[in-house]
Amino acid sequence: MKLVRYGPAGREKPGIIDAEGKIRDLSRIVPDIDGAMLADGGLAKIKKANINRLKVVPGKPRLGACIGHVRNFIAIGLNYSDHAAEAGMPIPKEPIIFNKAPTSICGPNDNTVIPKESTKMDYEVELGIVIGKRARYLDKGKAMSAVAGYFVSNDVSERSFQIDRSGGQWNKGKGCETFGPIGPWFVTKDEIKDPQNLDMWLDVNGERRQTGNTKTMIFGVEHLVWYCSQFFVMEPGDIIVTGTPPGVALGMKPEPKFLQAGDVVTLGIEGLGEQKQKLVELKK
Amino acid sequence: MKLVRYGPAGREKPGIIDAEGKIRDLSRIVPDIDGAMLADGGLAKIKKANINRLKVVPGKPRLGACIGHVRNFIAIGLNYSDHAAEAGMPIPKEPIIFNKAPTSICGPNDNTVIPKESTKMDYEVELGIVIGKRARYLDKGKAMSAVAGYFVSNDVSERSFQIDRSGGQWNKGKGCETFGPIGPWFVTKDEIKDPQNLDMWLDVNGERRQTGNTKTMIFGVEHLVWYCSQFFVMEPGDIIVTGTPPGVALGMKPEPKFLQAGDVVTLGIEGLGEQKQKLVELKK
Repeated sequence: MKLVRYGPAGREKPGIIDAEGKIRDLSRIVPDIDGAMLADGGLAKIKKANINRLKVVPGKPRLGACIGHVRNFIAIGLNYSDHAAEAGMPIPKEPIIFNKAPTSICGPNDNTVIPKESTKMDYEVELGIVIGKRARYLDKGKAMSAVAGYFVSNDVSERSFQIDRSGGQWNKGKGCETFGPIGPWFVTKDEIKDPQNLDMWLDVNGERRQTGNTKTMIFGVEHLVWYCSQFFVMEPGDIIVTGTPPGVALGMKPEPKFLQAGDVVTLGIEGLGEQKQKLVELKK
Repeated sequence: MKLVRYGPAGREKPGIIDAEGKIRDLSRIVPDIDGAMLADGGLAKIKKANINRLKVVPGKPRLGACIGHVRNFIAIGLNYSDHAAEAGMPIPKEPIIFNKAPTSICGPNDNTVIPKESTKMDYEVELGIVIGKRARYLDKGKAMSAVAGYFVSNDVSERSFQIDRSGGQWNKGKGCETFGPIGPWFVTKDEIKDPQNLDMWLDVNGERRQTGNTKTMIFGVEHLVWYCSQFFVMEPGDIIVTGTPPGVALGMKPEPKFLQAGDVVTLGIEGLGEQKQKLVELKK
């Protein structure tokens, strides 16, 4: 199933993509696409519903974040060996975990707002994981039971905040408003045969910057979910973005080409859809 | 006002401490002590209520986290110059921001569970701030308007996860289950004349380990709230713990005395109450 949230920011409604690619309104089946819905067995309810009898949503509504009310937005650093190399960092022995502020989350095609004092705006196409049930000290090899599905994510980053002004902690350059576009869809895991063999790409103004495949992840989906559960408890609706392949602006030679106002970033992952963001100046 | 949440974990009810130190049941006035209550003008409703006509809660119920459903649990690193020195770190030019997982939050007197593979359990008494309204690019000098109140926090830390196994990102050693006892009370800011002049202390098994005062913070409450709002949007019910004075186990010479199962940690801040945690082994 491809689940969406559509409508104006803050007032999104739940929907599902039908066989013809149209959005059908799920409001009569579940209140929202979020952790509470997952905890309440909402996916089973949606599965049982007769999708073709649900109202088709007219027009082309804005898409919101594909999962609402996220509490813990977890991110993994340097999880593709080529990206670690371009960032000039050693390949990690264990997954590196940091957080993005939940208020950074936005719709997949919302504008990316350049924060005050920003000088080094960057992009990172990443596979996102939706946690479907409470995860605490999961057994190794059994962590997939806690995964509800996947989505496309752009781990938007401000490198001067993340590196030059951080005291070493990356969060400052990762959690700004609009730095977490997620979606277009929350794709349930039954639709993705092998999460470790998905092509991914990212363009800036139509120029290809990132090309990768989830098979070159250092730590795969199952390992990451298991690993995170050894350090903290995850709840339904928490999300993990799993690191980016090579090609970010920071790693470009001889000069990084950081994003500027007016730039358009497009990105996608095989089977999970595409995003498009325009960089805009901050309006206070 | 001193607000509390009391009752079994996950089923806490809202309460207020009366003039005699008894808990009065606030369930008829507000549904909970949390961000939704703050956003909904709940503090004004409580202020208007006749506390002495509310039901006295009998016995000695467990206290839960003094604020419920926290979404963004923000923490500041190395914010006391003496502590930065004992940790062998330079004094930061700007506040260092990291996150604790929201699922680390627990009641002020709940046991501290030693995680699997832990070897270096540590403690940090910290002043906590409750954000009372949406905070985005606050004006300098006006950030106190976003503060609803204060609480005592123990920023429980596992130093091998935080430092040796982290790849540099501290979150891994900060967000484990029970690593975020907050309370006993959420004290509204009108009760605290000067948040930059509060004595604080922490004992292990009755031995004084930390003694400090919030006046030696490098960055004070107003600056921290302003500063965080320049990097990410904060919502009502988000919390910030503001760093710890000297005396943590990590900094002890010649040998750190990390916490062990059976140890009892007590801590407090002037005007904000006291906490007590017992270290226990993990029961899976």
